[in-house]
Amino acid sequence: MKRFIDLADFSSEQISDLLKLAARLESHPEPQALAGKVLGLLFMNPSLRTLASMQSGMARLGGTSFVITPGQGTWQLETRLNAVMDGNAAEHIREGIQVLASYCDVLGIRAFADGKDLASDVSESKFLDMANLVENPLINLESAVNHPCQALADWKTLDDLQVPKRSKFVLSWVYHPRALPLAVPSAAAHMAAMRGMDVTILRPEGYALPPAIMERARTAAAASGGSVTETSEPAEALEGAQVIYAKEWGCTTHYGDETADATLRRRHKNWCVDNSWFAKTAEDCRLMHCLPVRRNVAVADEVLDGPRSVVLRQAYNRLTVQMAILYRLLKD
Amino acid sequence: MKRFIDLADFSSEQISDLLKLAARLESHPEPQALAGKVLGLLFMNPSLRTLASMQSGMARLGGTSFVITPGQGTWQLETRLNAVMDGNAAEHIREGIQVLASYCDVLGIRAFADGKDLASDVSESKFLDMANLVENPLINLESAVNHPCQALADWKTLDDLQVPKRSKFVLSWVYHPRALPLAVPSAAAHMAAMRGMDVTILRPEGYALPPAIMERARTAAAASGGSVTETSEPAEALEGAQVIYAKEWGCTTHYGDETADATLRRRHKNWCVDNSWFAKTAEDCRLMHCLPVRRNVAVADEVLDGPRSVVLRQAYNRLTVQMAILYRLLKD
Amino acid sequence: MKRFIDLADFSSEQISDLLKLAARLESHPEPQALAGKVLGLLFMNPSLRTLASMQSGMARLGGTSFVITPGQGTWQLETRLNAVMDGNAAEHIREGIQVLASYCDVLGIRAFADGKDLASDVSESKFLDMANLVENPLINLESAVNHPCQALADWKTLDDLQVPKRSKFVLSWVYHPRALPLAVPSAAAHMAAMRGMDVTILRPEGYALPPAIMERARTAAAASGGSVTETSEPAEALEGAQVIYAKEWGCTTHYGDETADATLRRRHKNWCVDNSWFAKTAEDCRLMHCLPVRRNVAVADEVLDGPRSVVLRQAYNRLTVQMAILYRLLKD
Repeated sequence: MKRFIDLADFSSEQISDLLKLAARLESHPEPQALAGKVLGLLFMNPSLRTLASMQSGMARLGGTSFVITPGQGTWQLETRLNAVMDGNAAEHIREGIQVLASYCDVLGIRAFADGKDLASDVSESKFLDMANLVENPLINLESAVNHPCQALADWKTLDDLQVPKRSKFVLSWVYHPRALPLAVPSAAAHMAAMRGMDVTILRPEGYALPPAIMERARTAAAASGGSVTETSEPAEALEGAQVIYAKEWGCTTHYGDETADATLRRRHKNWCVDNSWFAKTAEDCRLMHCLPVRRNVAVADEVLDGPRSVVLRQAYNRLTVQMAILYRLLKD
Repeated sequence: MKRFIDLADFSSEQISDLLKLAARLESHPEPQALAGKVLGLLFMNPSLRTLASMQSGMARLGGTSFVITPGQGTWQLETRLNAVMDGNAAEHIREGIQVLASYCDVLGIRAFADGKDLASDVSESKFLDMANLVENPLINLESAVNHPCQALADWKTLDDLQVPKRSKFVLSWVYHPRALPLAVPSAAAHMAAMRGMDVTILRPEGYALPPAIMERARTAAAASGGSVTETSEPAEALEGAQVIYAKEWGCTTHYGDETADATLRRRHKNWCVDNSWFAKTAEDCRLMHCLPVRRNVAVADEVLDGPRSVVLRQAYNRLTVQMAILYRLLKD
Repeated sequence: MKRFIDLADFSSEQISDLLKLAARLESHPEPQALAGKVLGLLFMNPSLRTLASMQSGMARLGGTSFVITPGQGTWQLETRLNAVMDGNAAEHIREGIQVLASYCDVLGIRAFADGKDLASDVSESKFLDMANLVENPLINLESAVNHPCQALADWKTLDDLQVPKRSKFVLSWVYHPRALPLAVPSAAAHMAAMRGMDVTILRPEGYALPPAIMERARTAAAASGGSVTETSEPAEALEGAQVIYAKEWGCTTHYGDETADATLRRRHKNWCVDNSWFAKTAEDCRLMHCLPVRRNVAVADEVLDGPRSVVLRQAYNRLTVQMAILYRLLKD
């Protein structure tokens, strides 16, 4: 394994192997496996789980990390090709990324969507421009429309909890004061489809996932025996659900238009997951969320603090799966 | 030992054991003692000594650290229970703290007082709300009215310098342009009382330590054979002092009222420790301060740069005692 | 070796030994050489390469680092002696530096020029005030008019590429929207002179390096058999050049006067290194730059992306030479 930038690059068998490795490292730690190895972490955007879990995972395998956060102790990085750099950014990614890569054995990059041009974001051009500069092993720590570490952690969580492969996985839009990126919903839909689940994407009008994202999920479902549908009707979506995966994201019909998005989303403030959402789900339906979650805005306290919530296990599994990813990239 | 959040949780014998362990690790390093262990550090407030000494101490025992600083590369954390999170904070401590705890073997948390409601700050409700979420070993890196790592470092410093247990320890308020928290004065008074010293708290009118804090110190003194008194008269307080522990803190009669505090403290700009303060002290009276100290505002250059000052030894002992704390929490 | 703060403190033989050690550690890693050792890094100014390469280098030798960045998670540090500290800075370097030094085995400090008073900056008084507080091994991570780690990395790069010692090294001023410090041009001119090269400093009128800096370079050249000249005529300077070392710096005739500097530098926006600069150079003339570089402002894409550019090797050599420096300071 040379890069971990998209679950779609791997077969189900490869994912299964990675998850087995994660479980093995959990039960049989290898505290010297990556001794002397260095992980470079480049955060173009903020982080809590990723920052802590990547450093901790590397440390538990005997390795070391350094963290670079442009704009915090480091100047801004320019990402546009051929830019005349007379603005704020003092360094171009063409130098910055390659230099950081030369200081480490594996590089992790987080670079959110620009949130202006949907086609550009869906193409992952920003992340790929950076990735293509790197010959080292590379990890996608969240890009414009992908978050493979989260997706793998979610997959492991579903396996840990023995959620049946052939069961109903509802990815539901929930309210948030601002437009958030498409990375997690895109990755979660694809992951569940690849796992063979029956995926229903529930979202208000205006918040449909882009066609290319839907197509990716459907392709994965076709291979796994799962399915992918979408609806704006909560009652229809939630009936029989085994998992509700709550997530906030931005308007796609007016992508990048903050005013239009704000007007539209204001109508859907009631899309906050509370106990009533589970009236017609499977009895043991789980609540998933990648975190951070705004309590009583996106999900109610009663759900997050109740037995359905598995959000802490998802977060913990960031550590376990990332250890497996680091191990595969550096050890094998 | 499961937690280190308050010296009052320990007997004098337990403190004595911890200090012996600190001395042993100083003279007989154990560079592999905590190999493979991970320390998580959550700083809700700024730090220099704590940030550097915790990381260094963990490293000297063979372990590793990660640092999370909300507002710097990480979003703000919400601390209020039942909050409707439609403001700036993107994540609640109920998730944030538990997630970080799941990535490490021991968690350190720094969370200063809110500085608005005295009863709330004295109750340590903010810190305890966080501490109660954590099942891991936990270290208080400074809470609203406590700073046990500093207190233990100060205790070791007094022992290192063979300051007699039965001698006069003057905790003196000194000037600072702004109100500072009660954590260090509260912890220092309690520590000296617990060590069996005769504690005099010298402060202008309006700056008396809260009754609950005084009571804690008096309880400790009753057990140790020490004593605790307070006064606003410098001459009376300083006579025969073996230690002057200088510290800035906020007005308690108008707690949280910046304007009233500013008006009051302006009258006491002359409370800056210079050589004249030592006119009637013991000949070898020491100057202590937890740092950072504003030179020529709180303490004069002539004192800080003279032989009485032990502030650098206090700071160095942060490292030695914290190594003992980490060792006890993780190794024993 | 006790300190690494200026190449001028070392003989050519000592530098040669350091470069050999760097090459040896490159080909024969010693991942346990500095086990248990701690590097403290104090960044008074921003960094990318230095931050990442110092941490990575320490890790590759088995050691650990901590990073302190005043103003980011740590308050500002006061540097003026005898200051009455009633402003923003909460801690004086007299305490801050000594405390940090007491937590580590080797301390690195970055402190840029104040950029106001040329004589003061050239005297390195700010850096030396800090350095003189430290008894530990110490590394200069860039001071007002020096950057010895960069200079040593550049030296190794020239050696790696077998650039003849007796060849023409042109240090050329290039355009930048703002005045930048004199540290790198001063260090690069001195390094090339010490290596025995024929150094030509090319800069517009108003941007001559200060006499004391020129004198240092000439002294080095006298000892090595090299030479140092300066000119404002590009055609004359570039003819026969074996290396063009591009660097931005501030006006020295109106040092610290932003308006005068801006007016003057605006006239020289065309000082951006493009392919035309190599018309009369040696055929295999190299382009060097310490990075970060503003593309198409200081150096054109066509040069940075072409075969002449060795900027990535220079940056990579920060890692290799710093490992040698750390090794010599801590191991020998």
